[in-house]
Amino acid sequence: MTGTERRGGDVTGYFTEQNSVETVNGRTGPNADPRLAHVMASLVRHLHNFVREVELTQDEWEIGIDFLTRTGQICTHERQEFILLSDTLGVSMLVDAINNRRTPPATENTVFGPFHVEGCPVRQMGDSICLDGKGETCLFAGRVTDLDGKPISGARIDVWSDNADGYYDVQQPGIQPQWNNRGVFVTGDDGQYSFVGIKPVSYPIPDDGPVGAMLAGLDRHPYRPAHMHYMVRAEGFQKLVTHTFVGGDKYLESDAVFGVKQTLVAPFTKLDGEKTEWRSDYDFVLMPARQKR
Amino acid sequence: MTGTERRGGDVTGYFTEQNSVETVNGRTGPNADPRLAHVMASLVRHLHNFVREVELTQDEWEIGIDFLTRTGQICTHERQEFILLSDTLGVSMLVDAINNRRTPPATENTVFGPFHVEGCPVRQMGDSICLDGKGETCLFAGRVTDLDGKPISGARIDVWSDNADGYYDVQQPGIQPQWNNRGVFVTGDDGQYSFVGIKPVSYPIPDDGPVGAMLAGLDRHPYRPAHMHYMVRAEGFQKLVTHTFVGGDKYLESDAVFGVKQTLVAPFTKLDGEKTEWRSDYDFVLMPARQKR
Repeated sequence: MTGTERRGGDVTGYFTEQNSVETVNGRTGPNADPRLAHVMASLVRHLHNFVREVELTQDEWEIGIDFLTRTGQICTHERQEFILLSDTLGVSMLVDAINNRRTPPATENTVFGPFHVEGCPVRQMGDSICLDGKGETCLFAGRVTDLDGKPISGARIDVWSDNADGYYDVQQPGIQPQWNNRGVFVTGDDGQYSFVGIKPVSYPIPDDGPVGAMLAGLDRHPYRPAHMHYMVRAEGFQKLVTHTFVGGDKYLESDAVFGVKQTLVAPFTKLDGEKTEWRSDYDFVLMPARQKR
Repeated sequence: MTGTERRGGDVTGYFTEQNSVETVNGRTGPNADPRLAHVMASLVRHLHNFVREVELTQDEWEIGIDFLTRTGQICTHERQEFILLSDTLGVSMLVDAINNRRTPPATENTVFGPFHVEGCPVRQMGDSICLDGKGETCLFAGRVTDLDGKPISGARIDVWSDNADGYYDVQQPGIQPQWNNRGVFVTGDDGQYSFVGIKPVSYPIPDDGPVGAMLAGLDRHPYRPAHMHYMVRAEGFQKLVTHTFVGGDKYLESDAVFGVKQTLVAPFTKLDGEKTEWRSDYDFVLMPARQKR
């Protein structure tokens, strides 16, 4: 059987409202990438069922085409509006959840977000990462351990947060110092980490583009609850990408990107008469690396 | 009940892999546009079910974000890659089918396509629309009638096709004359139309962008079977947007955008010893306009 015959045989007839899914997916050829064919067949089925279910009008289809086009065109090196769309529709968190199923006591993952930067200098334990002198100072401290509570030595902890005005350094080049509120710390044999940052503040995701307009149309606010980002990597363990959230933040239950998990809400304790104003303790528990197949 | 209370009450708890759809849709506020809220709730459900069904990996998600971004960024005034994506996934045809359900003897709709241009000069019945002198000449003729076969006077017939090289005039400004293979004809009391064009040729949709790469990955060809575009508008009748397809074309059963319907495949008859080389007869039957609600 040649490819042409196979392709001919797959065609179930001309496209109709009723056979749309089978007709489109039947067009996939015998030499398609098998995983791509599987993913696209599922996407086509769900997309057609969506169109059918809401009886999408021609005008709405045009609005959708225009929305997607503008979402692509507003993207720059500094702005990724499609990630923002994925985030605000809960798709990013769902992909993260499916790919990082964790059982206690392992620390849970959450969204990576668009503001991490590779290459931040390694600092000494206890150093301050706040370079602009703004905001309420906070000591962050804890341990990195395996599932049995054994300290992990040589774990590389990337941390990053917004500044007191709610912006990351990369959003304000020339205004904030480079590497403001960022640091990399490497654990010793005790698995302990500590650094001084600021008590993070809640902030809106960029809402002056298509995604902001969508949120407004859905009567949703664009705010994220205050959080500190962490990425923890250690030889022999699964990479952990997570945040700790500031307990009591008013947006905890309505994070615009659905990143909050109960286990990631951390205590922030006010310190009286100390050099730093707050303290937040949090331990990170890593899963062993997946077996290579 | 205030908006804030309502929003709080809608939250079913933090996002999990299991409750993702309810959590995202529960975030929609009380002042959302009702139709937008309905459409987005369905989209979110189908999108999440797709991600869940294929267990989309983090790498695949990144490929998807990059694909959508590039699809938006390649769009220009002359190129609409998101429409092409919608067309090649059968979404455009499905929207068209849902919004233009027709019963015999009414002529069926098909995709509009990106190459129509408003403002083409009105020509006299029998005129030639082929201005570059290329291709095999063909007489197109027939009648525009209502469902009872009564001729419609004053029907405005827009026609457009590619040239003998497979390109529309707007794809080759400076190479093809303006309005090449385009015309507007207005019927008289007999409802008849006739014009001379070329026997259209099959051509590939633009396949040097993200959509072309997707088709290649799915082992699908980018060709459309040869066709003549028509848009027929008349006072008191539904707008008809359709093509006639050249019977016998080798891509009839594998149109890259799924536009072919059996009733739109037209006869093209070779004429011997006549001034024009081919003849294609086709009657258009319009539905009465929808009742205004």
